[in-house]
Amino acid sequence: MPFQKANALVIQSGGPTAVINQTLAGIVTAAAEHPNRIGQVFGAHHGLHGLLYENLLDLSSLPTRNWQAIAHSPGAALGSARLKPLKTDLSRVFEVLEAHSIKYLFYVGGNDSAEAAQLIREHAESFKSDVRILHMPKTIDNDLMVTDHCPGYGSVARVVTHLVAGDDLDNRSFYNGIKINVCMGRHAGWIAAASSLAKLCRESDENPDDAAPHLIYLPETKFSEQRFLDDVQRVYDRIGRVTLVVAEGLADQIQNKRFEGEVDEFGNPQLSGSGKLGDHLCDLVAKNLSVDHSLGKIRVRADTWGYLQRSLTGLISQVDAREAYQVGRAGVRHMMEGETDQMLTIRRLQTDPYQAETGLCDLAEVAQKTKVVPPEFIAEDGHSMTEKFMEYALPLVGELPHVHALKAERVAKRLGEHFRPHS
Amino acid sequence: MPFQKANALVIQSGGPTAVINQTLAGIVTAAAEHPNRIGQVFGAHHGLHGLLYENLLDLSSLPTRNWQAIAHSPGAALGSARLKPLKTDLSRVFEVLEAHSIKYLFYVGGNDSAEAAQLIREHAESFKSDVRILHMPKTIDNDLMVTDHCPGYGSVARVVTHLVAGDDLDNRSFYNGIKINVCMGRHAGWIAAASSLAKLCRESDENPDDAAPHLIYLPETKFSEQRFLDDVQRVYDRIGRVTLVVAEGLADQIQNKRFEGEVDEFGNPQLSGSGKLGDHLCDLVAKNLSVDHSLGKIRVRADTWGYLQRSLTGLISQVDAREAYQVGRAGVRHMMEGETDQMLTIRRLQTDPYQAETGLCDLAEVAQKTKVVPPEFIAEDGHSMTEKFMEYALPLVGELPHVHALKAERVAKRLGEHFRPHS
Repeated sequence: MPFQKANALVIQSGGPTAVINQTLAGIVTAAAEHPNRIGQVFGAHHGLHGLLYENLLDLSSLPTRNWQAIAHSPGAALGSARLKPLKTDLSRVFEVLEAHSIKYLFYVGGNDSAEAAQLIREHAESFKSDVRILHMPKTIDNDLMVTDHCPGYGSVARVVTHLVAGDDLDNRSFYNGIKINVCMGRHAGWIAAASSLAKLCRESDENPDDAAPHLIYLPETKFSEQRFLDDVQRVYDRIGRVTLVVAEGLADQIQNKRFEGEVDEFGNPQLSGSGKLGDHLCDLVAKNLSVDHSLGKIRVRADTWGYLQRSLTGLISQVDAREAYQVGRAGVRHMMEGETDQMLTIRRLQTDPYQAETGLCDLAEVAQKTKVVPPEFIAEDGHSMTEKFMEYALPLVGELPHVHALKAERVAKRLGEHFRPHS
Repeated sequence: MPFQKANALVIQSGGPTAVINQTLAGIVTAAAEHPNRIGQVFGAHHGLHGLLYENLLDLSSLPTRNWQAIAHSPGAALGSARLKPLKTDLSRVFEVLEAHSIKYLFYVGGNDSAEAAQLIREHAESFKSDVRILHMPKTIDNDLMVTDHCPGYGSVARVVTHLVAGDDLDNRSFYNGIKINVCMGRHAGWIAAASSLAKLCRESDENPDDAAPHLIYLPETKFSEQRFLDDVQRVYDRIGRVTLVVAEGLADQIQNKRFEGEVDEFGNPQLSGSGKLGDHLCDLVAKNLSVDHSLGKIRVRADTWGYLQRSLTGLISQVDAREAYQVGRAGVRHMMEGETDQMLTIRRLQTDPYQAETGLCDLAEVAQKTKVVPPEFIAEDGHSMTEKFMEYALPLVGELPHVHALKAERVAKRLGEHFRPHS
């Protein structure tokens, strides 16, 4: 089969992850192993924007030694974008691809990007283009269909596990501490769910049920402010504090979405980068919770973790990094074998010990669809995760931290009670 | 010199740090080496509250092997409090100390705690108490007088360095990204200042001046919203994005402190656990910044890092952990040598290679005082740190992460311009 040598283009699209550049590095290094088939490797500067405006970067010009450093850096190294191709954009897309002899298009993104990739693929024939497209999964949201999980998820899961493990010990330092943590996750609660792994980090003489997160709220479960307050009250009454996690997507269920900011071209409202949901829940708890005031005032705090969840260097999951790299390399292999116009997937072969391989699926199975957390991963109480979920998520996160909550015997009292005016 | 055997009490006070339990572990393990002088070691359950209400924990009952695990766990393992002793509390304090034969009081805290310790010391004689007090410094704020730095600071400095190093690459992923990060620091900007170390994490072909943080705002510098906007505009015009850090204490300088929450017994208003300052600055920038709209809309986001700064396990500075432990051990040594009623300090012997030892200072030099970031650490522009500061802070943080911002050559354009309607 005669094969014409052509150039390749990599597009990074949508929200970055901590390992998105592993996939990029995987593509670039694997492409270099096919010098007779792949000419130059270009990168679109800022996603579809770079493609439309012909802002292309020459990745072949970078020294090989740079790729390892780039691979382990968070953020989209090529620049990303949240553009959806308009009808009027399509002719331009093929014009640019043609002008730069690009036949191999690697689109690294989530379900919105899969939609964009599918649109380009569908119109290729009518524009007489022989471009071949592979979509490489990338999203901290872990909400792509078919694939067992998405590169990027293991690292954010690792970050939130560390956050909750430490945060609960911080919250436990004070009496009457109610700590609300708002994590990313618009339509799916995979990130909030991952915080449940913090329970496994706790070496303690305490009751294992006392380890945080005590309550987890996912967009998959109908949210009621009254039930939320009842849950918080019940945990407080039992252990004197509450450390909980809510997915930012809950904002959609509260008071007519009044927390939303701007909307992108795919119709997604901005939820991150604002503390409004956390502040609202804080007020709600502060006004309604009944606490033991002899211990001092109620202490309600909210943290909105924001972008650090996907960009924190130093806590990247090694499993996640390796898989993201392998997805990039596998993409080049499939492209060379002519298996294109699909999305790369990760197929779990077994969980313990963890083994996985890459696969392929049709773009139509992924585009515009969202894989929510399935019922078997959500406990019946609606605010905790099942063991089955934890078995699923654990191998993606890597080694867990270990923290220890001191629990010592009380010294017998020798005096009468003390009374102190409370301010 | 005949010495009566007596018990010891450890109090953890104020906001926890990631290494406050190192100091506790240092005290407990060193105390065990003086079985003829120190009987039992107690912990006050929740700071002064535990002392007043006679809620004491028997730390001698814990297996030795637990202490290493407790030492590396964030949060105040004994429980903390933000109580100030009232006049009516003082007799009770000495009553409880007497009832439990406590002669050695180790008070682990910041400047508010030093004030409490000083108050107890001043009244000891009039209550016929022979209690001896040592104050052990602990604060992420790094704002205690005399000591070169405070245990707890190195770890928060390490966290914010990682946060900014990753966050700027995340922000750089998009066009027109303005990213505001609100860090802890009420009266002193030491934490915001530490984020400047992120500049050293950047391996890049970019201009070194392009590495974040691009702007740092400390409470030490007078804040003007107009100058802030001018600064942001100038950086944006130069490199097309801005990643900046503001200390939460700036809220005091903006519009009549309208961001404040509740106030503790020392008169400190709550600043953390709310996203209000970040949201305010976000709105300010979104409404006033002039950006290149051909690249897309302005993207302004604020993250308020909150409590994770002091509780994030996995990014603890090893230098900080070691020093916090040594401070605990040195405290016991000084106590046994009769050098008491003082605060432990860290004295820097040299910076490169870093060497330090513990020392002592009078409590009155520390109590109620705040060491702000000195002028020689703040650059003339008022929004960046001097090299001298970075030399000071670097050895406290430990090994820095390395991230790489991709910079590749542009591919020559072959087509005319593209015009696209902007939504």
